[in-house]
Amino acid sequence: MGKKTVSLIMLLCFTAIGQLSAEDGSRLWLRFQLQEKTNLPDFSGIQGELSSIALQEFQLAWEEMTGNSLLETDKPTGHTLLIGTLENRLIRRLVDREELHELGPEGYILRSVMQGKDRFTIIASTKENGLLYGAYHLLRLIQTNKYNDTLRITERPRYDIRILNHWDNLNGTVERGYAGYSIWQWDQLPEQISPRYREYARANASVGINGTVLNNVNASPDILTDDYLKKAKVIADILRPYKIKVYLSVNFSSPKILGGIPDSDPLNPRVRQWWQEKAREIYRLIPDFGGFLVKANSEGQPGPQDYGRTHADGANMLADALQPHGGIVMWRAFVYNPTEEDRAKQAYSEFMPLDGQFRKNVVIQVKNGPVDFQPREPFSPLFGSMKQTALMPELQITQEYLGFSNHLVYLATQWKEFLESDTHCNGDHSTVAKTTDGTLYQHPVSAIAGVANIGQDANWCGHHFAQANWYAFGRLTWDHTLPAEEIADEWIRMTFSNRDDFVAPIKQLMLSSWEAAVNYMMPLGLHHIFAWNHHYGPEPWCDIPGARRDWLPPYYHNASEKGIGFDRTTTGSNAVSQYCSPLNGQFNDVNSCPEELLLWFHHAPWSHRMQNGRTLWEELCYRYDDGVQQVREFQKTWDRMEPYLDRERFRHVQSRLRIQSRDAVWWKDACLLYFQTFSRMSIPYDIERPIHELEELKQIKLDLKHHN
Amino acid sequence: MGKKTVSLIMLLCFTAIGQLSAEDGSRLWLRFQLQEKTNLPDFSGIQGELSSIALQEFQLAWEEMTGNSLLETDKPTGHTLLIGTLENRLIRRLVDREELHELGPEGYILRSVMQGKDRFTIIASTKENGLLYGAYHLLRLIQTNKYNDTLRITERPRYDIRILNHWDNLNGTVERGYAGYSIWQWDQLPEQISPRYREYARANASVGINGTVLNNVNASPDILTDDYLKKAKVIADILRPYKIKVYLSVNFSSPKILGGIPDSDPLNPRVRQWWQEKAREIYRLIPDFGGFLVKANSEGQPGPQDYGRTHADGANMLADALQPHGGIVMWRAFVYNPTEEDRAKQAYSEFMPLDGQFRKNVVIQVKNGPVDFQPREPFSPLFGSMKQTALMPELQITQEYLGFSNHLVYLATQWKEFLESDTHCNGDHSTVAKTTDGTLYQHPVSAIAGVANIGQDANWCGHHFAQANWYAFGRLTWDHTLPAEEIADEWIRMTFSNRDDFVAPIKQLMLSSWEAAVNYMMPLGLHHIFAWNHHYGPEPWCDIPGARRDWLPPYYHNASEKGIGFDRTTTGSNAVSQYCSPLNGQFNDVNSCPEELLLWFHHAPWSHRMQNGRTLWEELCYRYDDGVQQVREFQKTWDRMEPYLDRERFRHVQSRLRIQSRDAVWWKDACLLYFQTFSRMSIPYDIERPIHELEELKQIKLDLKHHN
Repeated sequence: MGKKTVSLIMLLCFTAIGQLSAEDGSRLWLRFQLQEKTNLPDFSGIQGELSSIALQEFQLAWEEMTGNSLLETDKPTGHTLLIGTLENRLIRRLVDREELHELGPEGYILRSVMQGKDRFTIIASTKENGLLYGAYHLLRLIQTNKYNDTLRITERPRYDIRILNHWDNLNGTVERGYAGYSIWQWDQLPEQISPRYREYARANASVGINGTVLNNVNASPDILTDDYLKKAKVIADILRPYKIKVYLSVNFSSPKILGGIPDSDPLNPRVRQWWQEKAREIYRLIPDFGGFLVKANSEGQPGPQDYGRTHADGANMLADALQPHGGIVMWRAFVYNPTEEDRAKQAYSEFMPLDGQFRKNVVIQVKNGPVDFQPREPFSPLFGSMKQTALMPELQITQEYLGFSNHLVYLATQWKEFLESDTHCNGDHSTVAKTTDGTLYQHPVSAIAGVANIGQDANWCGHHFAQANWYAFGRLTWDHTLPAEEIADEWIRMTFSNRDDFVAPIKQLMLSSWEAAVNYMMPLGLHHIFAWNHHYGPEPWCDIPGARRDWLPPYYHNASEKGIGFDRTTTGSNAVSQYCSPLNGQFNDVNSCPEELLLWFHHAPWSHRMQNGRTLWEELCYRYDDGVQQVREFQKTWDRMEPYLDRERFRHVQSRLRIQSRDAVWWKDACLLYFQTFSRMSIPYDIERPIHELEELKQIKLDLKHHN
Repeated sequence: MGKKTVSLIMLLCFTAIGQLSAEDGSRLWLRFQLQEKTNLPDFSGIQGELSSIALQEFQLAWEEMTGNSLLETDKPTGHTLLIGTLENRLIRRLVDREELHELGPEGYILRSVMQGKDRFTIIASTKENGLLYGAYHLLRLIQTNKYNDTLRITERPRYDIRILNHWDNLNGTVERGYAGYSIWQWDQLPEQISPRYREYARANASVGINGTVLNNVNASPDILTDDYLKKAKVIADILRPYKIKVYLSVNFSSPKILGGIPDSDPLNPRVRQWWQEKAREIYRLIPDFGGFLVKANSEGQPGPQDYGRTHADGANMLADALQPHGGIVMWRAFVYNPTEEDRAKQAYSEFMPLDGQFRKNVVIQVKNGPVDFQPREPFSPLFGSMKQTALMPELQITQEYLGFSNHLVYLATQWKEFLESDTHCNGDHSTVAKTTDGTLYQHPVSAIAGVANIGQDANWCGHHFAQANWYAFGRLTWDHTLPAEEIADEWIRMTFSNRDDFVAPIKQLMLSSWEAAVNYMMPLGLHHIFAWNHHYGPEPWCDIPGARRDWLPPYYHNASEKGIGFDRTTTGSNAVSQYCSPLNGQFNDVNSCPEELLLWFHHAPWSHRMQNGRTLWEELCYRYDDGVQQVREFQKTWDRMEPYLDRERFRHVQSRLRIQSRDAVWWKDACLLYFQTFSRMSIPYDIERPIHELEELKQIKLDLKHHN
């Protein structure tokens, strides 16, 4: 009864909030709109442990959908929803124990069963974790009109650790955040608790995310002070029921800065001791603390190389401190120095020699591509190659390089391309996913991370459709074999409408949106030609006196009268050699290199003949124009959807699409007019003409330093 | 010999200037490029009066085209160019005296004649004026590859007075000028003489213009001071050889302001005497002075109504002062008061009752439309109706309401539509042209005026294609029956190239450019929804507290949830009644009113069914979008022309077309998004979507006060 009262109060609160800001996007994909009876299961009662978070969550949603509670029943008659572990007598009778154990603590069975005249819909797991995910699975089926009475589902996650990385600073700003200030209100903690923390937990749990790094990888040492740890503990306590563990980014110089030790040398016993004590202190506050995320010796951050030690020395020291408590170290491979070596090669060069030297509770966190979350990159060559060390992919959900929260870009297609890339390092079909999820190389832990796109904006992500990327990240971490289309389908139905007339065109829009953005920003393997620092808009001409060459676009595009692109072949930087055979050869040959990556691996002449017979210059022009035309079509598609939508979200997305449409033309004009100064060729005359002057575009300097 | 030396020096100067700024457009349509020999007449010599301006001009051009002088010959052998009046013995022999006299002082015969074995190309006239126009005609034929040896041409102008109105202020600014400061450098006169004055004279003479009003109709009294008259005399002396008379705009309060008389009442004998003395003073300096242009009792200018007198009283007083010297008064009918009466009706209301009361040397200058040089207006109802008074059309060459010198809008099509409008006031086929050129109503003088688009810009008019409007104005004043296409053809060939691959598409572009501008600015009879004051860009929402209602767009478009447009039917302002039958009835009926003028005459519901079956709202959307797409096509057409063009002019026009393309989208978005707030209908979904937000567009406030 007590729990039920709580649920009811929560429901009332939620409903009240819901009505005030009905369609501002704040409810994400958890809208649980009042369903038509025909779409609902005909549950006559519910059975299970009332204290179970899974049962509570289901009840809460059910009441929202139906306006009624589902009554607890001891004697099942009619159609009973049964949620429980093997502790439950009925579960033990209806589910095979062995089968359940094989699914692990997060796996579950979701099944329709007839028992005499009584029907059961069962959610069974060995642990409460699995029940929670199972309950959300059932809710998803109901929300998307896909529930039926012949369910036969078993699920277990592909990755053990499915984690968000918040690049949130302790002062409330968010690096590369485009949805307002950080949801973590450190200045108000531990006393004041935002209701958003629990909503955040529910949303993540509903898509299978089970970990979160609260603070920026460019970490302030302060996070490890007593004050901040007590604040973090409060968050951890709120997330725990939703099976989400808290992790922290740490500054490698913390012992020196906080501990008064002369250095932070990982081989210094005092340093090692400091970390061990800090670990104990953390675990006293947060017994299930997940571990550390570390950006070391990268872009000015301190690290073990400051003391002549290796990344392995640094990571292992932290791993040793966390190991007694069950914590892990996620050590980032995003390292590059202002040397003459091709930036795309440096992570591999630094980390490959260390393979085999890391502790078992170290995971190397590797960005999907070898440079930095560009619109399209080949996969990082560390994947597949580094076999004796656990590698976890790092994806970027926030759209640092994809139009911030102004552009509609559905990223599941990008991530699928990455996860399904065949590294060939362990024979054919050695996809990135299989080399990291434990299928091909076994390590104690598998993991995958995504840089969050979450902020204080009412709709969480700035753009309503950016929610889809949070959603898709979670779903893919659970099961990377899910098609991007299926994930989009689920999300659209839950977020907007189940109407087929709506779902089909919007799904099509989402599925083509990433390729559109690549087209109008950086087609054919172009990369990093963004505006300086903030990365919004084009600046292929960017030249900042004294700046690192590898932070400047001309370093990457190398446009000249001879051609365009970065020569990474054997006669160039030889980055191709970091890939396993036969990929290295395929990338090395301008005629076998995938055209989508042509200018990533090759400096090709403007007259290079593409497979469709066009010259490279012509193809570049058509791609940019395609991007513009695609966004115009997105606008048409969206405007047609007005009858299916609430006015608030319709107008919001409509307005962002207008910006995207303007930006696409901006990109096209800037890049074509700039590259034309080298190619000295005409833009094919059937293409819409530029409407800007190159010199005017060069004057644009947006003041977007803080992205808040 | 002396004259020849002068010509040669002029040639050298011109060539030198030409080479320095070869294709900056400064030479207008008088480029006289070195012609292929095959396109040139095989003149073996020239005969005529060496002092003739016609002969000089021809020689100058010939030398530019061929690099050689045409030798004077006394004994014609081979093919002689013969330029002369009846004073010339050969002319008397070869040309019929009667025929020549019928052509008047400006008319000419241009003819190929064989005399024995000798061939003559003859330019004959009774006066030097005609010889000059004939010489330019022959040069035009040569420049446009249309010269042949079977010429048989007789020409005389349709209007007696073909005049430019400069809205140039004495401080050097130009009201509604978009090509830099005034070419009249009053502060440097009379001592310093810009070489542009003579170039200006040549250009005008070459297209038949024979008068110019040097100063703004919003006239400073200073123009009639001794100082300024001496300056004007210098200009008049330079223009005189080119048969261009100088006129001045006068301020009606001049007697009071300059003469120290207590008032400027036209019936005050002291005032009349002051004007008579002023006229004598002017004619002492400028014996062929043309007369006065007067804007009185309009937009704050003083006038006879200030003293309870009529426009006729005022005009006649000035006419009486000028009459002894042969001067005329051009009295503007552009008058309207902030009353409740429809502004479109006021000129007619004020002037019709005065018909028959004006002196013979008064011409009423009437703007083409009843409001103010809008993208499209019906003709002013004064044309045809006011029969006992000479009326002269006033056209606007400068693009006050057509995108300034940023938009490519060829106006000959607009002017032809106007001139060929059938007033029906004197039976069918009573076109505006015929009611003003002396065909239907005879008056001592016929005239036509155009507000100049000329300034100090290197290319004279801001936009290279704006030169075409100066050119076309001149050509139409000479012969309003010339097709707009033929004029464009001439201009393109002389200004750019004779290559058919160039002429055909560019002619097509020019001929559709006005309709395109109407489409993206004010289709279907919409008018005056421009930005406040400067009239650049859309501001249909414009509301300036305290401003005259008839200066605000909502006065004209009347958009509401019920519909849009100005009801000028019999149940509205009844402006239709000012038109002769059957036009009044045709305009009055929403179903017979030409759709191009629908919203000029009618307030129509959004759902009004157009002839093509679309609703009015839909048609409005398609028209705006058509305008955008048309400008995009202009861009494509122009870019394809790059091989035929010098880089300087190609880039200049390309850049302006980009602005026009952006502006067209700006217009479309602003008007559709604004009117949509009333229609509450969707923009048809096959149309390209807006890329702006209405609220953002409302924030645009351009600082364009002085247009310089």
